[in-house]
Amino acid sequence: MPDGVDKMRSLIGITMGCPVGIGPEILLKFFSSLPEADGMQPVVLGDLEVIRHASTTLDIPAEIVSWQPGDKIKKGTVPVCNLSSLDISALGWGKPNEITGKAMAVYIEEAVKLIGNRVLSGMVTCPITKKALSMAGYNYPGHTEMLAKLTGTKHYLMMMAGRQLKVTLVTIHEPLSRVAAMLSTEKIAKCITMTAQALRQDFGLRNPRIAVAGLNPHGGEQGMFGREELEIITPAVQATSDECDVSGPWAPDTVFYHAVEGRFDAVIAMYHDQGLIPFKLLHFSDGVNVTLGLPIVRTSVDHGTAYDIAGHGVADSSSLEAAYVMAAQIIANRMNKET
Amino acid sequence: MPDGVDKMRSLIGITMGCPVGIGPEILLKFFSSLPEADGMQPVVLGDLEVIRHASTTLDIPAEIVSWQPGDKIKKGTVPVCNLSSLDISALGWGKPNEITGKAMAVYIEEAVKLIGNRVLSGMVTCPITKKALSMAGYNYPGHTEMLAKLTGTKHYLMMMAGRQLKVTLVTIHEPLSRVAAMLSTEKIAKCITMTAQALRQDFGLRNPRIAVAGLNPHGGEQGMFGREELEIITPAVQATSDECDVSGPWAPDTVFYHAVEGRFDAVIAMYHDQGLIPFKLLHFSDGVNVTLGLPIVRTSVDHGTAYDIAGHGVADSSSLEAAYVMAAQIIANRMNKET
Repeated sequence: MPDGVDKMRSLIGITMGCPVGIGPEILLKFFSSLPEADGMQPVVLGDLEVIRHASTTLDIPAEIVSWQPGDKIKKGTVPVCNLSSLDISALGWGKPNEITGKAMAVYIEEAVKLIGNRVLSGMVTCPITKKALSMAGYNYPGHTEMLAKLTGTKHYLMMMAGRQLKVTLVTIHEPLSRVAAMLSTEKIAKCITMTAQALRQDFGLRNPRIAVAGLNPHGGEQGMFGREELEIITPAVQATSDECDVSGPWAPDTVFYHAVEGRFDAVIAMYHDQGLIPFKLLHFSDGVNVTLGLPIVRTSVDHGTAYDIAGHGVADSSSLEAAYVMAAQIIANRMNKET
Repeated sequence: MPDGVDKMRSLIGITMGCPVGIGPEILLKFFSSLPEADGMQPVVLGDLEVIRHASTTLDIPAEIVSWQPGDKIKKGTVPVCNLSSLDISALGWGKPNEITGKAMAVYIEEAVKLIGNRVLSGMVTCPITKKALSMAGYNYPGHTEMLAKLTGTKHYLMMMAGRQLKVTLVTIHEPLSRVAAMLSTEKIAKCITMTAQALRQDFGLRNPRIAVAGLNPHGGEQGMFGREELEIITPAVQATSDECDVSGPWAPDTVFYHAVEGRFDAVIAMYHDQGLIPFKLLHFSDGVNVTLGLPIVRTSVDHGTAYDIAGHGVADSSSLEAAYVMAAQIIANRMNKET
């Protein structure tokens, strides 16, 4: 019953990101070797002409077709929901302006709307920049904050996910000297709770094992190298130990090794580089950024717009591929929960 | 001319470390599958009876023989320079006291003396603890500071070295909240200079490529996430750029990946976990701690006394093996420089 199967196919929206970044290029490369994701079909929210231009100038052949909600999708095509009409001749790779900034914001808004209407089952985002957003009058530090606003979400959390390692971050873009002051037992406990929920709901783990990293060398060594473990982190672990299999604070320099070895399903990192250094070492090309806490499924590539190489034809679509496969898995896991 | 070769063999002293830690066990395991190190021969500075006791109770068969400077060494034996006479029956694994503390300090002092007398060409240290040292009245935080004192060394530096990654640390056992305040341009520049010297002299690299990590997320992003890159780190890179191929500050979350990929020979880390997280992820069992800046060659295992598993027979000698092979390479490189 191929027709029936086709009708059941879930659509995942992929926003094109900044039109003059590497988004159009990685999208074309992604479609040219579309990864297997049972029962899922990607559609692009972006600009038909920009993608056609990228296909021609970067020599990535593709059958690019216009798509609207309700349209059937022909296998092997790149279906694009055309949401802007950018004048290619006036644009230059790597040179965002007010118009490109507005366009990329519209792709995101439309994706959220189509998820709300149940046309799409989730979204994957190609990279944008804060600079281009603000040129168009959108004052968000990035995607995550914009999506939180659009979906009315108060508590959200960034998870970096890969096959070998998953980490969530208690603080993100803080100067290192401010990290200690930004920590609180409440914030860490919330992060543990949300990570456990996501591992259950989105990653299908019944009893996720969560490790909480310490802040200081050797986890502070009983206060000798810092007291945050004793005063802030340990109480957070204790407060959540009824909810899930959580342990720590562990010495930061070995906890990621133990997670990779299979002892833990995720590590809660206290600051950006504590989590990102081991994550990027293992998942430099195929890491995925997942936003936890949103009512919608959203994954993202874990790299930027790469304006310096936009239009050169050398961008790597591995992270987009991994982000799409992960979104598909999360959608399937949530569906299984519902049925 | 086997006799001649034998006379040229360089001796490397291995200090037994804490007598009630895992030192005796890893020494026996190390000798039972002695790694190839051209022209080098290890000798133990420790306690004959303790090693014999470990051999019997842990069932690691070995021909343990007394050795004194000048003695010939029979192949396949474990030569021990007997420097203490500990009463085995009164000791317990994992229970250091004043007497074991004194003994392990003597092994270190004797190794330094024998290097000074040119009996030994270098030393490898098995683990000790600050606690056991201080029980015996030696007030050093650890090996490194004790060796600096014994050799009259003012500037020394810890390098963690493995086949895939080498890192040196600008700050070590500082609470994370104090790291930023502990950095100075002078300290970082000194670290760059010493790292370059070691890579040339000890690791045989003519033109070592050194990467300096930033302190803050993304390397501060032009001051948005912290100003230490602009005000402290960049001036240190500029001040040393005539001496060696040094670059940075690089974004901390990707610089280690690039080093492992072969772009850099070593990374200068601003704090303990910035360097140790990626290092331990890659070299959990076979990492080596090398002290730079000493007039003698000293490498060390990169793990502790492991009192919790001492006497259980489950300790891993990989790090000791790697530390011995690295000491041998450093000695050979220095000899080649001299001839």
